[in-house]
Amino acid sequence: MLAQLLAALRGIQLPLRLRLWDGHELDLGPDPSVTLVLHDPSMVAQFAHPSLSALGGAYVEGKLGLEGPIREVIRLGDALSQALIGEGGGAAPKRRAHAKATDAAAISYHYDLSNDFYALWLDREMVYSCAYFETGAEDLDQAQQAKLRHLCRKLRLQPGERLLDVGCGWGGLARFAAREFGVQVHGITLSKEQLALGRQRVKDEGLEGRVELELRDYRDLPRDGRYDKVVSVGMFEHVGHINLPTYCQRLFDAVRPGGLVMNHGITSKYTDGRPVGRGAGEFIDRYVFPHGELPHLARMVADLSGAGLEVVDVESLRLHYARTLEFWSERLENRLAEAAQLVEAQSLRIWRLYLAGCAYAFAHGWINLHQILAVKPLADGSHQLPWTRADLYR
Amino acid sequence: MLAQLLAALRGIQLPLRLRLWDGHELDLGPDPSVTLVLHDPSMVAQFAHPSLSALGGAYVEGKLGLEGPIREVIRLGDALSQALIGEGGGAAPKRRAHAKATDAAAISYHYDLSNDFYALWLDREMVYSCAYFETGAEDLDQAQQAKLRHLCRKLRLQPGERLLDVGCGWGGLARFAAREFGVQVHGITLSKEQLALGRQRVKDEGLEGRVELELRDYRDLPRDGRYDKVVSVGMFEHVGHINLPTYCQRLFDAVRPGGLVMNHGITSKYTDGRPVGRGAGEFIDRYVFPHGELPHLARMVADLSGAGLEVVDVESLRLHYARTLEFWSERLENRLAEAAQLVEAQSLRIWRLYLAGCAYAFAHGWINLHQILAVKPLADGSHQLPWTRADLYR
Repeated sequence: MLAQLLAALRGIQLPLRLRLWDGHELDLGPDPSVTLVLHDPSMVAQFAHPSLSALGGAYVEGKLGLEGPIREVIRLGDALSQALIGEGGGAAPKRRAHAKATDAAAISYHYDLSNDFYALWLDREMVYSCAYFETGAEDLDQAQQAKLRHLCRKLRLQPGERLLDVGCGWGGLARFAAREFGVQVHGITLSKEQLALGRQRVKDEGLEGRVELELRDYRDLPRDGRYDKVVSVGMFEHVGHINLPTYCQRLFDAVRPGGLVMNHGITSKYTDGRPVGRGAGEFIDRYVFPHGELPHLARMVADLSGAGLEVVDVESLRLHYARTLEFWSERLENRLAEAAQLVEAQSLRIWRLYLAGCAYAFAHGWINLHQILAVKPLADGSHQLPWTRADLYR
Repeated sequence: MLAQLLAALRGIQLPLRLRLWDGHELDLGPDPSVTLVLHDPSMVAQFAHPSLSALGGAYVEGKLGLEGPIREVIRLGDALSQALIGEGGGAAPKRRAHAKATDAAAISYHYDLSNDFYALWLDREMVYSCAYFETGAEDLDQAQQAKLRHLCRKLRLQPGERLLDVGCGWGGLARFAAREFGVQVHGITLSKEQLALGRQRVKDEGLEGRVELELRDYRDLPRDGRYDKVVSVGMFEHVGHINLPTYCQRLFDAVRPGGLVMNHGITSKYTDGRPVGRGAGEFIDRYVFPHGELPHLARMVADLSGAGLEVVDVESLRLHYARTLEFWSERLENRLAEAAQLVEAQSLRIWRLYLAGCAYAFAHGWINLHQILAVKPLADGSHQLPWTRADLYR
């Protein structure tokens, strides 16, 4: 079996080196940039169907070592699985029930990992979503500030307005909107770690009374249209297909007639639930975002519309997210020793693969990022948005 | 029955006057602004269920006279049907087979009516689709020029590029793009009248060799990716739900990798085929756009995506279309005597109601207008669009 594997791998001619459990090394192609370390003979069988999920899982569990620059690891991992299993591979994404308790547990798994760990590689405001590069030459801090401004501008925030931030993370957007646009912000999250640090930062910046953050499920929001605007960033990916109509209805109920609702999040490539990325989705589901479910843009548009919201502006920021993740991944790679002090070795392995892998996935169009702006029409069906979007670019 | 009708109508207290077949007049509310003329006793029964389709049909067929400002006619017609039949009403929109021959006949019915008639009330370039008001203070000519420029900018047209215009009408966009952006344009239409006048204008402007217009079905387009960009304005409404996947596939096949595809058209309010507008849709289907079928934005996004195109930018211009139609309607109302020399009395009645009615429908959100920009990704999944949309507003 090993002989067969070696023959197959050599046929592909990728710049890979193989190191076996006994220390034996073989080059599979010229000038290897990545070394695969098979710590265990059982790995030989796994390579017969090397989906990204299987390779990633073996790495997380310590059976497979991956040595070399993380971007090369991802690139060659994909080339390898493409050569050996082709375009297919991977199970269809799972659809789950998404009760409040399991949602809370799933959110906690990811976001309560360690504030200090996230602070190592996120920007100074700890904005954990796609940044916005106005020229492509910005650093991460600049691009995240630009993203926050872009969102606030799209929402046409006016001083004194009430903004709801659904899935507020560490409160970066909430504080920015209060500080720069003079709005009152109510942010909700299901992560206790995020809430604690978010509240601390609100206090440190003297924004108490203008930014209120709390632990709350989106299903427990007030439904009296008390907010002028609603923003939701990196949130609908956690809601689950089964609950998307309810989620959209709650956003509709929360905002006043004439108010605006922004959904910014990751969307899937296919409408029909086909797997994409040769098993990468399974890896994400198992190790990174349990119970995450990416809707297609069409599904978000349909459900927003079904709730009575009118979609007025959609923008893809796919390549912005590829660049954001490259920044995050590079920053983490530069601080691996510190990271190892903050999280378990297995978590670190997961996050290394996930950040570099998602950069690759966005760059290659396996997944997308859409900002979807919708308005809740006034009683007569009209709205008061400006005629054009020119105000976003002044 | 007449007594019952009168009691019901009087209860609504709308500013309507009723004139019966015998000349008898009754005011149904204070200060009537519109007179309903029942030319025939059979109309009494129709008023028991006065859908906009039934009222409009009776008017077209000469059984019902409508006297007064056309916008008031529409407003009161809607108020009347709302009061008497409520929010429901109207059959679900029809879905048809859309063979080439029936599509050609349907297009001919509407667009071959009379070039001179359309010229009476359209702008000087005869752009028969939603204009673009940058400030709201523009006249129709300015707003249509701005729309053509907005489309060309969204397509990032560069001199020497090849542009396909699917459903090119009288060639206004094709000539503008060639003249102002230096591209080579291939426009196709199914209307012989549009083609004849479009070609004449190309010749008059000395654009032969840069703009080629021809009679062709979208299903007969070249599929070799020869175009750099594709634009389709007011076209997908005629394709039919059953053929939307094919239509999107043909756009995908026509454009090169990295190329852009713009779909600008009218979208429905509901995803589930519910009727909207108290029978207005039936009126449009019967008298105005036979075999027209408005897809929801979500449906267009899904089908474009299914064909391999990536949706990068969506903009609603709903209130722009309300204003455009108000311009058209007002211009027609101001030239009714000339119009009556150009088309049959019945056609004129249809067009009067349709233009004013659609202005009302867009203003009230019964239908929408979306510009949907998509890219055909390069082989590696990337594309070369600018980082932001700021270039559209410089």
